[in-house]
Amino acid sequence: MTLGEIAAILGGRLIGDSGVTVENVRGIDEALEGDLTFVSNPKYLKKLETTRASAILVSAGTDSPGKNLILVDDPYVSLGRILAVFYPEDHGSSGIADGAFIEESAVVSEGATVHPGVYVGRRARIERGAVLYPGVFIGDDAVVGEDSILYPRVTVYRRCLIGKRVILHAGVVIGGDGFGFALPGSENIKIPQAGNVQIDDDVEIGANSTVDRATMGRTWIQRGVKIDNLVQIAHNVVIGENSVIVAQVGISGSTRLGRGVILGGQAGIVGHIEIGDRAMVAAQAGVHDDVPSGHVVSGSPHRPHREWLRIEACVTRLPEMRQTLKAMAKRIAALEEKLAAAGASSRDGK
Amino acid sequence: MTLGEIAAILGGRLIGDSGVTVENVRGIDEALEGDLTFVSNPKYLKKLETTRASAILVSAGTDSPGKNLILVDDPYVSLGRILAVFYPEDHGSSGIADGAFIEESAVVSEGATVHPGVYVGRRARIERGAVLYPGVFIGDDAVVGEDSILYPRVTVYRRCLIGKRVILHAGVVIGGDGFGFALPGSENIKIPQAGNVQIDDDVEIGANSTVDRATMGRTWIQRGVKIDNLVQIAHNVVIGENSVIVAQVGISGSTRLGRGVILGGQAGIVGHIEIGDRAMVAAQAGVHDDVPSGHVVSGSPHRPHREWLRIEACVTRLPEMRQTLKAMAKRIAALEEKLAAAGASSRDGK
Amino acid sequence: MTLGEIAAILGGRLIGDSGVTVENVRGIDEALEGDLTFVSNPKYLKKLETTRASAILVSAGTDSPGKNLILVDDPYVSLGRILAVFYPEDHGSSGIADGAFIEESAVVSEGATVHPGVYVGRRARIERGAVLYPGVFIGDDAVVGEDSILYPRVTVYRRCLIGKRVILHAGVVIGGDGFGFALPGSENIKIPQAGNVQIDDDVEIGANSTVDRATMGRTWIQRGVKIDNLVQIAHNVVIGENSVIVAQVGISGSTRLGRGVILGGQAGIVGHIEIGDRAMVAAQAGVHDDVPSGHVVSGSPHRPHREWLRIEACVTRLPEMRQTLKAMAKRIAALEEKLAAAGASSRDGK
Repeated sequence: MTLGEIAAILGGRLIGDSGVTVENVRGIDEALEGDLTFVSNPKYLKKLETTRASAILVSAGTDSPGKNLILVDDPYVSLGRILAVFYPEDHGSSGIADGAFIEESAVVSEGATVHPGVYVGRRARIERGAVLYPGVFIGDDAVVGEDSILYPRVTVYRRCLIGKRVILHAGVVIGGDGFGFALPGSENIKIPQAGNVQIDDDVEIGANSTVDRATMGRTWIQRGVKIDNLVQIAHNVVIGENSVIVAQVGISGSTRLGRGVILGGQAGIVGHIEIGDRAMVAAQAGVHDDVPSGHVVSGSPHRPHREWLRIEACVTRLPEMRQTLKAMAKRIAALEEKLAAAGASSRDGK
Repeated sequence: MTLGEIAAILGGRLIGDSGVTVENVRGIDEALEGDLTFVSNPKYLKKLETTRASAILVSAGTDSPGKNLILVDDPYVSLGRILAVFYPEDHGSSGIADGAFIEESAVVSEGATVHPGVYVGRRARIERGAVLYPGVFIGDDAVVGEDSILYPRVTVYRRCLIGKRVILHAGVVIGGDGFGFALPGSENIKIPQAGNVQIDDDVEIGANSTVDRATMGRTWIQRGVKIDNLVQIAHNVVIGENSVIVAQVGISGSTRLGRGVILGGQAGIVGHIEIGDRAMVAAQAGVHDDVPSGHVVSGSPHRPHREWLRIEACVTRLPEMRQTLKAMAKRIAALEEKLAAAGASSRDGK
Repeated sequence: MTLGEIAAILGGRLIGDSGVTVENVRGIDEALEGDLTFVSNPKYLKKLETTRASAILVSAGTDSPGKNLILVDDPYVSLGRILAVFYPEDHGSSGIADGAFIEESAVVSEGATVHPGVYVGRRARIERGAVLYPGVFIGDDAVVGEDSILYPRVTVYRRCLIGKRVILHAGVVIGGDGFGFALPGSENIKIPQAGNVQIDDDVEIGANSTVDRATMGRTWIQRGVKIDNLVQIAHNVVIGENSVIVAQVGISGSTRLGRGVILGGQAGIVGHIEIGDRAMVAAQAGVHDDVPSGHVVSGSPHRPHREWLRIEACVTRLPEMRQTLKAMAKRIAALEEKLAAAGASSRDGK
């Protein structure tokens, strides 16, 4: 593909030779002649001089004499768009493959792609453009919306609803029973989980993550939410639009996240709380109470991030503080002794 | 279903109109006319007045004039029973579906339900009433007991034993190799894992959790244990009856839990220790040593919960403590100076 | 098998009756007559006297009159070798089973074992001796090397490369999309993940672990690495030879581990850092910055292990420190008062 074509696709401005062709997209350190690369973080701009790439995606305003530059508003966004052009993913051709098991009452659109080893339950509906990779399980009365991609071994339990353009990676489980038992630790009486899971449009969920069905009502992942691998979402949780949840996070039952919330990896959130819009939770934090909109929290138990920083600075100095404390105790004792001696000598009749 | 019928099923006492019918069960905030709801936690009793539900499950002794109440001993337990009546789960009809792969020497009871895409290994045994959802794998010589339900993609490795009325959610892996290597970090020589996993009756395990087979002997999950999603149980662990393990917990090799132990989410337990009966471990705790029966522990590294509370209270005040320490150092220095001055002046013979 | 035969296999020295036969291998506490057992940890040597085992693998130099001993260099390594002899695993016979789905352009070696319900994509290659258990998915252009074993439901996405003698346990996902989004929390624009995953020879990965494909280039697990269950490896991570990663660890994008690194369970490693050769990270640690070769770190945020120990010792004493601080404040105030009184009385003209 020529640089002229790429600039046109991205709506970018080309500085250099529009006829040069590139065949691959690579990182700036690995890029060779014939490659397109990019610089998004300004601290890597100095690599422009040494890269062997034939062309570089950069921010408008960047200059590097002798290099072929494509100037765009956001080089990282443009990288994403051009990667999709260079490396399109081929999901196979539409239709129901031999070796897929479709219950008679299920409805599979002609435009859907159903691979071998897929199971689609009674009265389930698979919309146009959806792709079900081998081993996908769709339970009774479940729905998979248009253009959604379910990678191998994804399980969607009965009555769960998957929106449009949703991506579920391999091994994701949607709609397993929430963890509800009466008299836990003694009788462990199971509370049937009668609700479902609703996943709205444009959600992506990473490999082997799990989203439990609601006890009653729904567990709800709203539009545009992105969830990484091995994340656990408990029953009746609500995740607001465009929130981002990094790997191995756990969210307990009935907790609600606002819009644009970001949860760092391995964070744990207790049940029945609210995390406000655009709040940020640091990796490994343990959130035990509501977090107001826009707040940033860290630590386990969590605190406002700045308070956490102040405390951690003290924790680092704890051994020193303890030494100071011991030394001060001695100095006080010495003072007390001196003063007692002084008092005694003055009483002794100066 | 009429309130009279419901009260009869639950053995509860009806206050109100026994002829009223309800069609759904919903939470107290979402409930509409025609719904049954419940109040278990006394702090929500005030919602009795405003709910639009046609009837409410409440504790014996509750009063709310003008409302249809069903009085029961434990409303949450009764909710569970009535949810099972209103929303029964249909696992399909018994028999071996086309597209299931059963090795010749396997024994599948006529009363079992085996869906397409299931594999049952040599000499394995599937008992009456068991349900194997699509994609379940049962290894050689493994056993699945009566009325157990294995959801899609559950894997049971060779020789593992699953009891009666066990529920394994989608993606659960029973009997993968324990993590045993000689000379770790240098040669990593694999120690074959020759034991198995035994899961007793009435156990439930959540989606994508993993239970490793023993090196020798068995990893043993005892009767009534409930395990949430994405939990890791290592080789040779023993979990005592009715223990409850919340999501994303990890338990290292050869550790033994007593009966009725409760482990909070994301807790980590080292290997080769004992957690006594009815002990409780807080979420995200790191347990590095034995915990006596009935104890409650928190934190990483873990401590008795009350001690942890006292320490956390101090941690919060660390910046203040550090300021105090600095201020005190100044005051001591001032005292020392004054006393030195006083001593000097007295020596100077005033 | 006779003790003479076992000693010969292990290259060990037999003290006792070479004609005695053993039928099982068991732990020293469970072993009965007819069993072989072992003692690796010197603290269990006293059990030699009481064990009922017919023979014991021990370190050279061990003595226990009247017992059949097999003296070897490393009893744990020898245990591993003899377990493999006593309990060989039977992966079924080679060939492609009915009910496996192999795309026409895929190449499956005659010596490979492909079970029912396996899917092998276009142009994928399965080498001699490889075993694909039921439900394994191999994407387009992926390669599985000689003698590798992929347990049920393993997913290998397109273009990923699996070396020789690799073991992937049930539910492992190799090559799911890395978690890359521009403008996270607001627009969440997906960056296509165009790279792959390369897994070198002799790697083992535990059940339901996930390794994400690179954005560009490769995510790379080098020779001999051992990874436990439910571990998350993000895009573009590199794990050096023979490193050992315990369960539920998470490693963020582009981080590089050296050789022989050991990561304890549930540790979390941020992105874009380097962990040097033979470094050790304690369980539940949170590593936020480079760790030099050979260093041992603990805690979240991580510190050098010795510093962490000193700090934890202080944390335990925080309530006491706080009491001391309060008491000292009183003593200082008393001193200040006395000194002020003394000063006043001296000014008052004694």
